[in-house]
Amino acid sequence: MMENLIYVVPALGIVGLIVMAIKSAWVTKQDAGDKNMQELAGYIADGAMAFLKAEWKVLSIFVVFAAALLAYSGTIHEINGKPIHGSWVIAIAFIIGAVFSATAGYIGMKVATKANVRTTQAARTSLKLALKVSFTGGTVMGLGVAGLAVFGLGGLFIVLLKIFNVVTVDSDQMKTAIEVLTGFSLGAESIALFARVGGGIYTKAADVGADLVGKVEAGIPEDDVRNPATIADNVGDNVGDVAGMGADLFGSYVATILATMVLGQEIKVTDDFGGMSPILLPMVICGLGILFSIVGTWFVTIKDEKSNVQNALNLGNWASMALTVIASYFIVVYMLPDGDITLRSVTFTKMGVFYAILVGTGVGAIMSIVTEYYTAMGKQPVMSIIQQSSTGHATNIIAGLSVGMKSTVIPILTLAAGIMGSYHFAGLYGVAIAAAGMMATTAMQLAIDAFGPIADNAGGIAEMSQLPPEVRERTDNLDAVGNTTAATGKGFAIASAALTSLALFAAFVGIAGIDAIDIYKAPVLAGLFVGGMIPFVFSALCIQAVGKAAMEMVQEVRRQFREIPGIMEYKAKPEYDKCVAISTKASIKEMLLPGAIALITPVVVGFVFGPEVLGGLLAGVTVSGVLMGIFQSNAGGAWDNAKKSFEKGVLINGEMFYKKSEPHKASVTGDTVGDPFKDTSGPSMNILIKLMSIVSLVIAPYIALDIQATRKIQLENLNKIMGKSVVVADTSNLLKDAQGTETSTTAAGNVNAAGDYVYNTGTVSVIDLPNDAKISLGAASDLNRLHEKIKANDAALLDKNNWFVLEDLYFESGSNKLKAGSENTLKSLYEMANAYNLNVKLGGYTDNTGDSSKNVALSQQRAETAKAALANLGLTSDRIEAEGYGPMHPICTTDIIPQPVWRKTEE
Amino acid sequence: MMENLIYVVPALGIVGLIVMAIKSAWVTKQDAGDKNMQELAGYIADGAMAFLKAEWKVLSIFVVFAAALLAYSGTIHEINGKPIHGSWVIAIAFIIGAVFSATAGYIGMKVATKANVRTTQAARTSLKLALKVSFTGGTVMGLGVAGLAVFGLGGLFIVLLKIFNVVTVDSDQMKTAIEVLTGFSLGAESIALFARVGGGIYTKAADVGADLVGKVEAGIPEDDVRNPATIADNVGDNVGDVAGMGADLFGSYVATILATMVLGQEIKVTDDFGGMSPILLPMVICGLGILFSIVGTWFVTIKDEKSNVQNALNLGNWASMALTVIASYFIVVYMLPDGDITLRSVTFTKMGVFYAILVGTGVGAIMSIVTEYYTAMGKQPVMSIIQQSSTGHATNIIAGLSVGMKSTVIPILTLAAGIMGSYHFAGLYGVAIAAAGMMATTAMQLAIDAFGPIADNAGGIAEMSQLPPEVRERTDNLDAVGNTTAATGKGFAIASAALTSLALFAAFVGIAGIDAIDIYKAPVLAGLFVGGMIPFVFSALCIQAVGKAAMEMVQEVRRQFREIPGIMEYKAKPEYDKCVAISTKASIKEMLLPGAIALITPVVVGFVFGPEVLGGLLAGVTVSGVLMGIFQSNAGGAWDNAKKSFEKGVLINGEMFYKKSEPHKASVTGDTVGDPFKDTSGPSMNILIKLMSIVSLVIAPYIALDIQATRKIQLENLNKIMGKSVVVADTSNLLKDAQGTETSTTAAGNVNAAGDYVYNTGTVSVIDLPNDAKISLGAASDLNRLHEKIKANDAALLDKNNWFVLEDLYFESGSNKLKAGSENTLKSLYEMANAYNLNVKLGGYTDNTGDSSKNVALSQQRAETAKAALANLGLTSDRIEAEGYGPMHPICTTDIIPQPVWRKTEE
Repeated sequence: MMENLIYVVPALGIVGLIVMAIKSAWVTKQDAGDKNMQELAGYIADGAMAFLKAEWKVLSIFVVFAAALLAYSGTIHEINGKPIHGSWVIAIAFIIGAVFSATAGYIGMKVATKANVRTTQAARTSLKLALKVSFTGGTVMGLGVAGLAVFGLGGLFIVLLKIFNVVTVDSDQMKTAIEVLTGFSLGAESIALFARVGGGIYTKAADVGADLVGKVEAGIPEDDVRNPATIADNVGDNVGDVAGMGADLFGSYVATILATMVLGQEIKVTDDFGGMSPILLPMVICGLGILFSIVGTWFVTIKDEKSNVQNALNLGNWASMALTVIASYFIVVYMLPDGDITLRSVTFTKMGVFYAILVGTGVGAIMSIVTEYYTAMGKQPVMSIIQQSSTGHATNIIAGLSVGMKSTVIPILTLAAGIMGSYHFAGLYGVAIAAAGMMATTAMQLAIDAFGPIADNAGGIAEMSQLPPEVRERTDNLDAVGNTTAATGKGFAIASAALTSLALFAAFVGIAGIDAIDIYKAPVLAGLFVGGMIPFVFSALCIQAVGKAAMEMVQEVRRQFREIPGIMEYKAKPEYDKCVAISTKASIKEMLLPGAIALITPVVVGFVFGPEVLGGLLAGVTVSGVLMGIFQSNAGGAWDNAKKSFEKGVLINGEMFYKKSEPHKASVTGDTVGDPFKDTSGPSMNILIKLMSIVSLVIAPYIALDIQATRKIQLENLNKIMGKSVVVADTSNLLKDAQGTETSTTAAGNVNAAGDYVYNTGTVSVIDLPNDAKISLGAASDLNRLHEKIKANDAALLDKNNWFVLEDLYFESGSNKLKAGSENTLKSLYEMANAYNLNVKLGGYTDNTGDSSKNVALSQQRAETAKAALANLGLTSDRIEAEGYGPMHPICTTDIIPQPVWRKTEE
Repeated sequence: MMENLIYVVPALGIVGLIVMAIKSAWVTKQDAGDKNMQELAGYIADGAMAFLKAEWKVLSIFVVFAAALLAYSGTIHEINGKPIHGSWVIAIAFIIGAVFSATAGYIGMKVATKANVRTTQAARTSLKLALKVSFTGGTVMGLGVAGLAVFGLGGLFIVLLKIFNVVTVDSDQMKTAIEVLTGFSLGAESIALFARVGGGIYTKAADVGADLVGKVEAGIPEDDVRNPATIADNVGDNVGDVAGMGADLFGSYVATILATMVLGQEIKVTDDFGGMSPILLPMVICGLGILFSIVGTWFVTIKDEKSNVQNALNLGNWASMALTVIASYFIVVYMLPDGDITLRSVTFTKMGVFYAILVGTGVGAIMSIVTEYYTAMGKQPVMSIIQQSSTGHATNIIAGLSVGMKSTVIPILTLAAGIMGSYHFAGLYGVAIAAAGMMATTAMQLAIDAFGPIADNAGGIAEMSQLPPEVRERTDNLDAVGNTTAATGKGFAIASAALTSLALFAAFVGIAGIDAIDIYKAPVLAGLFVGGMIPFVFSALCIQAVGKAAMEMVQEVRRQFREIPGIMEYKAKPEYDKCVAISTKASIKEMLLPGAIALITPVVVGFVFGPEVLGGLLAGVTVSGVLMGIFQSNAGGAWDNAKKSFEKGVLINGEMFYKKSEPHKASVTGDTVGDPFKDTSGPSMNILIKLMSIVSLVIAPYIALDIQATRKIQLENLNKIMGKSVVVADTSNLLKDAQGTETSTTAAGNVNAAGDYVYNTGTVSVIDLPNDAKISLGAASDLNRLHEKIKANDAALLDKNNWFVLEDLYFESGSNKLKAGSENTLKSLYEMANAYNLNVKLGGYTDNTGDSSKNVALSQQRAETAKAALANLGLTSDRIEAEGYGPMHPICTTDIIPQPVWRKTEE
């Protein structure tokens, strides 16, 4: 069974890739328009390739260096006598992951730069055809990413099983195979980070620069051919929104599946797949997700010009999700065994696993809907920004920031509920599989997502080629829908990243040999703080890079307008390549520091402070990263659509405002601020948190603690804190009221000159306690009797009625003040409690003469005094109980002398 | 000793209050200027009082309601049989705290509204006198806050000790007293939150509204008497920056001292103060801090017009800090006992406590310096904002946001180091006392802080009264310095809030009966997420409130300009009161929701999800709150000073720009966005995190878990996970190669038809295992021998050389495939391991014929196969070890038959 199923996974990936190839060929076959359009499209394609080449050059150095490091780490087979199940093969897996990730981006960009101009051309005919071309372009990208991921991961897994000769699921060989597989994910996610950050900086530097001079200063429309930065802007759409996003989602997809596999490897089940079903399940579900995504694309079609494009996309999206969820049910029932499944002491059933998938899908859906609400035109959040644009730039910014911050509430509550829900249903495996379920239809998600920038580009080409207005209208229609899908896609991506990070986090904990991440410990809390700070500095670096590069762009565009005469009159061609070069250079340069922070911080923290502090760091990064991601993406999306709303005119306080009005100018400011938020720093948060988790997972074996040793220390500490549950004593000068009657359980004695009853406790001998302390006790004393019972481990000690008299403990008459000489008895008691780790209960008593309530109070005070004295000797107060009984418990042998007694008690 | 020292604390508070009264009288005595000035000042004072009254009216309802709830809670004396050491007196303490906090704000506002106009008048004479008046006004505020806090806390503590008849430090009575004292802090901090948020909304709504119409639209200067919002703006300085800040720092100061007291109460020491030294220490240090703050004010004076005001303030500040640190050394040495001090298993010395105070002061100083760097004119961060103002509003905003985010790095690293450092020196008490040490000179900090808005107001009055330019120049000089001190004050405040929250957090953990806050648990992590989100939504509500109120203000101002003819020509008076009313109403209304979130969230989470999840929530709030606080305060400060830089002109790309230039307009946008950041939401973060911690601390006894029960469960789980360390076995069909020779330790037998050696294991009997499982073992079998040894707890089991043969376990020849029939043996082994919680080590062996390396591989595979079979039966793989020895260990009695054996081994 296993043999067959394991081959199904890469096969599903190949199916995806074949369909991709067919669709890609179809796109290529479409009419690419006239010579002018093709020339412009050529500039864009060339610029995009130039960027990719420049990026790859830098990244290849990084990949070689990192691979060498990983290969070296794979040769370490033990640390401090602890075996490490690594292999140098991880370097190969890393390189494959990196190459696949880059390829995913490349495929997307290649098809996007073909589909853009063909969409423009199609838009000359009909909206229906334009949608078909642009969406097919997106589909190529989606299937490319998902197909490569499933094929790569599934295929590599099979190869690794062979290479390491894996026989059983919990063998060391399997550990090595999975460890090597994390290298694949690390490679994918590293490239994704650079692609997303680099691409994000590129696209927004160009966009902001083009807008600031073109739209705001020169007053020419967006995408005007006269704007020197317009080609760079359109290239940006491809390298950032397409190639960057492709690499990003490729990384997410792989990381999600991998995290589930790592946790699945820890689960012991007897199934028809050699115990491998929990490992294979996420791959199979995601593989099927490709098939259902293909089915979903069939629904994305419209009838005529008036059809609602958004509805068509939604239909396709929901169809593929619903089909995948239904299929998951059967797959889960088929693959997983009946009965209990256990992971890290949490037990669940296969139905729990299915419910977790449902929870994951639900979380994803809610995140998308909420994101749409906060960023869509016509809804309250965007309307509030529009309203506040009427009082200027500043209030527009304030409104947008506040919308972004507020938009974190429901997603975070949803996420929190999702974590608790999926954990409830299937433990940590549930959290991971929820993410995998959510990501299963990545091919479809990405198709919808990538269609946006293609339509955007198509509109740009239409504008630059000065095509008739109905063409631009059609592409604008598509572009507007694309903006919404881009926003919901981001909501989906951040939710899956959060769940994936948690799954990776759980996997990390398992491998790092820790049972807990206790933020009550000072260093772990410090780690949490530092982790929380990283998304802030990362975001700052991203948006600062955009700001700086945009400024350079602005100056270049201003220079060209100034120095090249005739641009404005279409007589001279702007130097597009200069602007492309600025964006390329800036993005490559500026992506390095944020990338280095993400990669190096966990390594440094892990090796210097150990896994628990690193766990705190990861938690901080995840929480803060998710918040900053949602905040920035949604603020940016809302600003964007607030600005767009002016195109059709908006009503503010009874007055209509259109483009070029003062409120519109304010909204352009918001949109420009939002650009790096929503396309550079915001979406980078996903990758940041995942990448740091994966890096931690990869280094986990090398920084792992000996979990048995940790637990042993913990056990000892707990035993020490808890002590054994025991004992009691108290105040006794009441005995001076006694007549010296001897009782059967205590030593005889007589009343001395001071009126105190002095016990005759027999021959005093020195007793050695186990901790080498020494005490002197009379042979007939009750303390000695107590000591004998402790030594004999006498169960009678646990009897609540068994009390021991504290001999020779005297208080001043009618007072709670201890008489001198009483300290010896207390000291002996303290030493015994200390040596045998006992808890003590002190009972205070009085005789039954006089005011009863006063007697109770006095006895309580005396017990408290004795307690304080013991505490002063060093017995922590949680180990001492004190109670005043007054004359209430005449438990002793004679009712004439209520005696101060010891009691051994069980708590 | 204790009796005396405890009275010293409130006495020091009274000293502070007396000096305050003297200084206040001096301010009142100063010349209040001409009639026009007095009229304007009268408007401001009236507006401020109107706001305070409106605020108090709303708050008194809240206070009564909350007090009733607290009084009720104080009547609950046990929950589920667990005693609660509360008292209804907490309601009184709460009310006193609230009244004191309101009084602190009132004193500050009262003196500020007197000092402002007197500063203006003084500025007609000299800078020296103007500084003296404004700084004395600030001093009154500082001494008022610190004096009231120390007097209130110290006095109330004495009263509570009497009321509850406290005898010993660790008595239940002391617990009650401290619990009641948290009510005081809760009252103070609740009022602080509303005052800060309400005041912050007030001041910024007025400020933003006044600027947007006045400066930007009408082109009249700031504080112009023609602007209808100008009075509201100046009132705002007093209610927000003075009264709000006073209440805020009063709350911080009290919370810091209280947190240290709560932790101090847990420490058992023998000292000269009845064991109370750790409780009294923070109060004494803060009391002395008042004295040294008074001394520090003597240094704040300048010689002439050209003297540097900033240096004078710095001198006073550093002097009071240095003196307090030096005094702390002697106080610590005097009060704390020699030898080890222990808090929650962490042991430290009194010198450790002093070092922790040093760490705290150091953290505060670094935070101030870093804040100044990020917000001061002429430094790189502000310069970068100025640069990016040249390309428009949007790039100015991007630059400011990025500066704010980046400015979190060093403060967070400092804070993390401070947490680790102070914890290292004196455990959790160290963290708390570090905060207390940092806060000790609050009187001085606040004097410097409050001086700013007084100078700002003075400038406003000068402008409105159209006094000669040299007056405005002098007040501007003071105002500029005030901006810097305001920024550094915020850095200080956020650092102390963070440390205080951690101390409160630690106190909470102790009272809530938990030992850890493990974010690896799903619900705790969910709590962390939700907690992290709260500062975002809180900030959003604050800045949104400012945005909305500012819009109303803008419309009102526009209306007045439109409808009241002659304002611009100074012929008609604007309706100042309308603007005051807008700010008042908006701030009161809008402060309620954020306040409710802060107060109610911890209660709901605590009661529904328990203390550990609440702990996660608090950690999330603290980390995210500190980050958002630093980010917003610094971004706002930097934007403000970027704008101010244009007054003297700035050089951008070789060109000079001044006020009214395009870049200046962009910088005004940034400043306006920064206003709510730096004066509303940013500084509210301090209070938010402290208030939520205090609320949690107050409810902690009611949601507390039984810590002993928790530990017991933990202990059982640990024991279960760890198992006993044991055992081993393995593969045996090698015996078919054997000649059937009998060994002394194992059963005899003979080779059967299949070539397998069949043991004669004697009479088979059924054995009942402790977990009611049953196994059948032959009397002579080695498994039976193992069982006997386990039952007898035989130490020989721990000997690594003690192996046990797994009889009747057969593999196919030359293969690792188990023969049918082998499962019985494995099943018996599994059952024993399961019943006695044993770990197993399986050793695989071969004979020494054939290729040695092949033999080793084969033996390893066989051991792995047996392991997999055990795992399939349900024994988790971390309890099974498998090793192939090949022919290497001929440890059995005959070297002809290397036998498969059991070994009991200690890990």
